[in-house]
Amino acid sequence: MSDIQDIIIQLTELGLEKPVVSHDSVETVELWSEALEACIAAEAALESQLDYVLTKCLILKPKQPKSAEPIQVFIIAKADTTFSMTNLGKDLGMKELRFANDDVLTTIFNTSKGNVSPFALSNVPADKLPSVTIILDQSLVSEDLNKDIAFHPFKNDKTVFISSVTLKSYLDKLVGPDGYKVIDLSKYAASEAKPSAPVKKAPQAEQKPAQAAEEVSGGTKLGLDVKKDDDFSRWYQQVLTRSEMLDYYDISGCYIIRPWAYHVWQTIQEYFDAKIKTMRVKNCYFPMFVSARALEQEKDHIEGFAPEVAWVTKAGSSDLEEPIAIRPTSETVMYPYFSKWIRSHRDLPLRLNQWCSVVRWEFKNPQPFLRTREFLWQEGHCAYINKEGADTEARRILTYYKAVYEYLLAVPMIDGIKSEKEKFAGGLYTTTIEGFIPSTGRGIQAGTSHNLGQSFSKMFNVVVEDPNSPSNSGNEPAKLNVWQTSWGLSTRTIGVMVMVHGDDKGLVMPPRVSEIQVIVIPTGLTVKHSASDRQTIYKACSDLVSRLIEAGIRAEDDLRENYTPGFKYNHWELKGVPIRLEIGPKDLDKNSALSVRRDTFAKSSLSLDNIETTISELLEQIQNDMFAKATKDRDAGLKLVLDWDDFVTALNNKCICLIPWCNTTDCEDQIKDRSSRAELGDEPQDEKAPSMGAKSLCIPFDQPTNPPIEQGVTKCIQCGNLATVYGLFGRSY
Amino acid sequence: MSDIQDIIIQLTELGLEKPVVSHDSVETVELWSEALEACIAAEAALESQLDYVLTKCLILKPKQPKSAEPIQVFIIAKADTTFSMTNLGKDLGMKELRFANDDVLTTIFNTSKGNVSPFALSNVPADKLPSVTIILDQSLVSEDLNKDIAFHPFKNDKTVFISSVTLKSYLDKLVGPDGYKVIDLSKYAASEAKPSAPVKKAPQAEQKPAQAAEEVSGGTKLGLDVKKDDDFSRWYQQVLTRSEMLDYYDISGCYIIRPWAYHVWQTIQEYFDAKIKTMRVKNCYFPMFVSARALEQEKDHIEGFAPEVAWVTKAGSSDLEEPIAIRPTSETVMYPYFSKWIRSHRDLPLRLNQWCSVVRWEFKNPQPFLRTREFLWQEGHCAYINKEGADTEARRILTYYKAVYEYLLAVPMIDGIKSEKEKFAGGLYTTTIEGFIPSTGRGIQAGTSHNLGQSFSKMFNVVVEDPNSPSNSGNEPAKLNVWQTSWGLSTRTIGVMVMVHGDDKGLVMPPRVSEIQVIVIPTGLTVKHSASDRQTIYKACSDLVSRLIEAGIRAEDDLRENYTPGFKYNHWELKGVPIRLEIGPKDLDKNSALSVRRDTFAKSSLSLDNIETTISELLEQIQNDMFAKATKDRDAGLKLVLDWDDFVTALNNKCICLIPWCNTTDCEDQIKDRSSRAELGDEPQDEKAPSMGAKSLCIPFDQPTNPPIEQGVTKCIQCGNLATVYGLFGRSY
Repeated sequence: MSDIQDIIIQLTELGLEKPVVSHDSVETVELWSEALEACIAAEAALESQLDYVLTKCLILKPKQPKSAEPIQVFIIAKADTTFSMTNLGKDLGMKELRFANDDVLTTIFNTSKGNVSPFALSNVPADKLPSVTIILDQSLVSEDLNKDIAFHPFKNDKTVFISSVTLKSYLDKLVGPDGYKVIDLSKYAASEAKPSAPVKKAPQAEQKPAQAAEEVSGGTKLGLDVKKDDDFSRWYQQVLTRSEMLDYYDISGCYIIRPWAYHVWQTIQEYFDAKIKTMRVKNCYFPMFVSARALEQEKDHIEGFAPEVAWVTKAGSSDLEEPIAIRPTSETVMYPYFSKWIRSHRDLPLRLNQWCSVVRWEFKNPQPFLRTREFLWQEGHCAYINKEGADTEARRILTYYKAVYEYLLAVPMIDGIKSEKEKFAGGLYTTTIEGFIPSTGRGIQAGTSHNLGQSFSKMFNVVVEDPNSPSNSGNEPAKLNVWQTSWGLSTRTIGVMVMVHGDDKGLVMPPRVSEIQVIVIPTGLTVKHSASDRQTIYKACSDLVSRLIEAGIRAEDDLRENYTPGFKYNHWELKGVPIRLEIGPKDLDKNSALSVRRDTFAKSSLSLDNIETTISELLEQIQNDMFAKATKDRDAGLKLVLDWDDFVTALNNKCICLIPWCNTTDCEDQIKDRSSRAELGDEPQDEKAPSMGAKSLCIPFDQPTNPPIEQGVTKCIQCGNLATVYGLFGRSY
Repeated sequence: MSDIQDIIIQLTELGLEKPVVSHDSVETVELWSEALEACIAAEAALESQLDYVLTKCLILKPKQPKSAEPIQVFIIAKADTTFSMTNLGKDLGMKELRFANDDVLTTIFNTSKGNVSPFALSNVPADKLPSVTIILDQSLVSEDLNKDIAFHPFKNDKTVFISSVTLKSYLDKLVGPDGYKVIDLSKYAASEAKPSAPVKKAPQAEQKPAQAAEEVSGGTKLGLDVKKDDDFSRWYQQVLTRSEMLDYYDISGCYIIRPWAYHVWQTIQEYFDAKIKTMRVKNCYFPMFVSARALEQEKDHIEGFAPEVAWVTKAGSSDLEEPIAIRPTSETVMYPYFSKWIRSHRDLPLRLNQWCSVVRWEFKNPQPFLRTREFLWQEGHCAYINKEGADTEARRILTYYKAVYEYLLAVPMIDGIKSEKEKFAGGLYTTTIEGFIPSTGRGIQAGTSHNLGQSFSKMFNVVVEDPNSPSNSGNEPAKLNVWQTSWGLSTRTIGVMVMVHGDDKGLVMPPRVSEIQVIVIPTGLTVKHSASDRQTIYKACSDLVSRLIEAGIRAEDDLRENYTPGFKYNHWELKGVPIRLEIGPKDLDKNSALSVRRDTFAKSSLSLDNIETTISELLEQIQNDMFAKATKDRDAGLKLVLDWDDFVTALNNKCICLIPWCNTTDCEDQIKDRSSRAELGDEPQDEKAPSMGAKSLCIPFDQPTNPPIEQGVTKCIQCGNLATVYGLFGRSY
């Protein structure tokens, strides 16, 4: 749930320029007006800054059948706008629109009478937002309004003043520009109703709390309300919450990873852990706490992280003498001990890894799995005697990262090296794998492996005696600073997988990481079947599951009595289970089961003889087909661009681009500037993107050869200087 | 390293009653005296409180051969005590005692000239403490001294005033009562030297920094300096650090779990995770952060944890609107979501588990693995429709915990139920497994599984409709609060394993959890052997390792050229590897290898034919023998006591006791009081024990039958009321 601080932070990012004013609680518009005037009278500086209109926010609901999913209407209006709820309702196709009761305010909007503000919309769970019709009074966004708009940010004891642009930005960010309606409410004015009273005077309509209307156990709703292509951002939130991968948490930017997603992570852990053990990497665990002194030792490095570090300053009721940081990453946690443990070249290479969570308290818009304040990852930290050792193993790790995506998650990757601008702060160079989200046309950094060079070993004094130093010269042997690598892969993996494979029915899980690979559902039973018929089918289902499990296939049956087969199909499609097997009396007569693939919905009747082999092969086929499809989609969004004029067109067509490039930071900055939509006078910037200018994603190891870069001849398409490489550029996460 | 706050906390626990006074930096005793008098003059209240003597602390070193491990002498004296360093050195058997140089002060004591205080001893790494001879000036602890003793706690800009009792308590706690010498320094007074000058005037003696004298790569020192029976606490610290299981960290109470220990934890994870998956427990991950509101929801529960909660109050340079807690455990993190997810009895049972770290910022003396501020654990949280479900599964988990200790770690456990006083705050009852550390005669809680009853589900409103409620009555169906369990097992497991099995040579690792089960070492090579002979032996070693690995045995060879076989034996004995195999020319001639068991040092010559089977059987034998030995030792320390007079005698003989008991909290409190050594006028209380009164460890499920408790007849041995059970009591961790 949002709290006052979240709201202020959000508004500040959107352009809050006026002070937040605190006053007594005000229950009516009249009291509010008085309170603000009193504040202005008390503080002269405010007078010149504030010119505002007051507002009211109303939460309404129509009459609905008890069985229907409850819907609400949320109105943001000027305080003096009056209109008829009934007339408005008619236009919206809603019967008997009236004030919603307390339960709705509390349960769905986490607010209460007299305190309602637009920002209560942030409290609505993602899966309920589609049930809210949001209406914005046209007079608040009219060109004629030269005033700020006053709202209670959280409770009615504070007021914020924002512009209509900021208000719209807020709503755009929350539900997208099509997620609310701007309506001239005054045209519904009528004598029969004057709802200018504040919400607290609302009649107490009868309504069951919204949560009682949930249809499915465990909070799963049947299917999605939104299509992937229509509103990708809402689709993503819905598919995650309704498939029970994730839930929102009462601290912003933190999320609950539920078992359906955690299984994917555990599969990645087991796979990757086994890989690095073949490299003799050893697991360990360092404390999550870092002293300020250690944290700040490497200056370039800490500059990158300082604004996002969370600080512990209290234990119980005592203040700590010095604040203690929670690790944002562990270079500065570990390397003082590398210095202690590495005494001789014989202690090299030292290869450590830990599975842990780290905290980066970002104030940017959080996004489940992709940008969260706490996230799970592994971080590897190794030290070598020379650059070659670090080079080789940094690349080897990158191949494992690529395999996690391509082999396990069926998501294609492009591997390469980061530009100077995008590399890890403090390191020598960064290798990376880059993914692509076709729905948004944006690239996404999927895993990085850094050669840190010697900068950290110099800061932390990680030295050994040079084993090649002449031993009989009588001099002290020369000291060598070790070469280091660090590399990390996080739960971002899961978000990328969902974004790439999911469809309008829900998740599509790659078989290798799906907790359930095959769901077996009894079908075809009607009232004319006897209890014994039913038991025969049920037993056939559970016998089949046992056989599949025996063969190493993760299978389950769904024998729940109180749900129809159709309901179960939807349920397991939402969760993305790769294969559904249906068994009914007719199937059993034929000694077969009907299989339905989640990825293609292709059906086929499979003989129960030898079905273990058939299913194993089918799972393998699905895994391969999913990778092939994702690769095809990625390739369709990957353009070789040889002319600047085609570059932005390609970006706007949701592509990422390979371009002949001079590989300089100045040019990279210019590419970003010149490709931002604002610069182009294009549609307003999408607030959900941290930056809509194109960034360099990587310089791919696998460089295009048709045409090749001719050194000394080929020109950079942006600046016209000589190109040295193909660079991969795109809008990105 | 200790910081000023740690020191103040430590001293406060030990009895710091006087204010800490801040003043200018004072480089000499004269300036110090002036500064304190100025403070007293400025603040009248101080005058009545302060009556003190000034002190000086000197760090000296003798002349030693370069190859020797450097030793230091640390003297705590009255400021006006003068003595001859040379004469003192003679009595100590040390040549040319003189002031240590800056390097020693910085590297070993983390202090600097002019700032030395007794509390710098806390900065000495555990493995270096034995090299420090600590001398306390008798005049500071004489009966005649009616004044407080003034020290700089950390730097010379502050002064603390403590009694001689507190000073001794500090030293007792740090190094034990035998770890320092009280000497009448005045008897070494002589005209030839007057070292009354402060340390800053020390001559700059030549000495290599202590760390350059480490003998072994990776910081491992050869073997231990202390015997397990002589000073158990120092033995424990040494064995952990020198075997490279753990390292100390620069934040007090936090430790680095190094690969040698982490492997044990990962083995436990894999074993237990597989067990709970058979129960259909699902893994997940909840955020580490908890809002204050959620944390404080269950009052009894939070009372137990509040004093130890770490609070995040800042992110980057911004203050958070509300402090956010780091989870000390996750009941209050998870259960609001249980309420959301559990809508129907069909959602039950819900069984979740997470592997994570939790933070309990204890101010008690931390101890690696046993009591740390951050620790790794798993926490399971389940919900059931009725008490029986919760009962059954809480007990099932306890059997898995017992198996972790007995099957994997070869440590015997006693399972039972906690008394009302010792149960988990807020729960219904707690089941527990209790271990025993023979060296200290103390019990240790090793894992707990709680039936939480319905108290949390009432607080967090986790309800379902009663499925047995009559369906046609027309009334609303009755609501049921779910029954919950929670259960946790932590890295404490590793500490218990080390304490039980370790010996004077180092760790003794149970084969099932040892990262290396067999170490193969080439032996018997002398100067008369050719390079080709050497290669033959080396190849025989690595071939053998390959064969063993092929057979699923975790084997390694140690072919390092620059170490002798004897050095390698010590190294791997310190690390506790279960079997050493030696191969030399003679062994090879006989087609055999010599095996040496770590637990018994028993040797036998093994034919290389079929050695995979022999070794597998031997590992199994070692595992079983270790468990049998630990059980025998535990049984020897477990007394059935039928008479109160025998109870404390048994405790003092390092036993835990089964006693006929009335099972009431009043009686339990009295048992604790009456069995504390202070009460008995016995030797001073061991400061390393949180409390030396006996606690109830559990009421064992397996009750003694000879004699049985006769209900209505048998009496409680403490209070004389009727006994209802045998209770297991003991001093404990």
